[in-house]
Amino acid sequence: MTDLAALNHHFENMPPVAAMQIRASGFEGDVLSLSAPLAANVNDKSCAFGGSMASLMTLAGWGWLMLRLREAGMEAEVYVADSEIRYLAPLYGDLNGQARLREDQDWPAILRCLAERKRARVAMLAEMRNDAGGPVATLEARFALKIVGRSPAHEDRD
Amino acid sequence: MTDLAALNHHFENMPPVAAMQIRASGFEGDVLSLSAPLAANVNDKSCAFGGSMASLMTLAGWGWLMLRLREAGMEAEVYVADSEIRYLAPLYGDLNGQARLREDQDWPAILRCLAERKRARVAMLAEMRNDAGGPVATLEARFALKIVGRSPAHEDRD
Repeated sequence: MTDLAALNHHFENMPPVAAMQIRASGFEGDVLSLSAPLAANVNDKSCAFGGSMASLMTLAGWGWLMLRLREAGMEAEVYVADSEIRYLAPLYGDLNGQARLREDQDWPAILRCLAERKRARVAMLAEMRNDAGGPVATLEARFALKIVGRSPAHEDRD
Repeated sequence: MTDLAALNHHFENMPPVAAMQIRASGFEGDVLSLSAPLAANVNDKSCAFGGSMASLMTLAGWGWLMLRLREAGMEAEVYVADSEIRYLAPLYGDLNGQARLREDQDWPAILRCLAERKRARVAMLAEMRNDAGGPVATLEARFALKIVGRSPAHEDRD
């Protein structure tokens, strides 16, 4: 299974994410792209529901970290700690969002911190644009990374 | 139809909200309560999905405003403009959240502003607690209220 397929498998196993039909569509140039159809995410005004946009952008940041941690051979749990969201314009089409590491974050240093202290914090940015390229929403979020201790029984088997 | 039933009718007509089974359960003492079952909102770690918590808290603020505007006899559209969310602890039970006006907001003044300028801004707070009363998430959000202009044809009929 490719990394992107594994991430989509994760998404499909979360009932609210499966209902919103959110899927990872690409991971290129350090940017993870997610998308979802408007029909499964529409509100009472025929545009995208704010909660669906918040979900997609949060999952984009979460997914980016899951993929990069897997790439680095590290098994860590990833939790969203807090976020700020700006809703800039109504979106009358399908949902497309992208996440990336915030410019001031040093990924190798974060991985070193995680290896040494078993915990780290990281700041991500995500944004959504409409089909014409106009911005519709942005998210800035901080995530907590945590290496879960293995049980003695598990270590015995290694 | 009671106001709460009308609000739930709104929720049922939004596909992502219907999927998350978010419902208004009470509106007492200027606090609107919403709830949703964990099963429809669970993530890969058997606790509540962050996007579902963001959705429930945003809808609680939105619903509060819809109910209070209806009570004031004003027909306005309500849009979320931005929000800050803090995820404080994992939630392993059903989702329960409450919204209220932020303490420094003057609701009668907001209604006067809306009547005069056809637009207003308002800040709301929401929070979620677990069954033991422990805090699991908070939201602070600003909403835009907008009275939609009637068409000349519509005014002729008045």
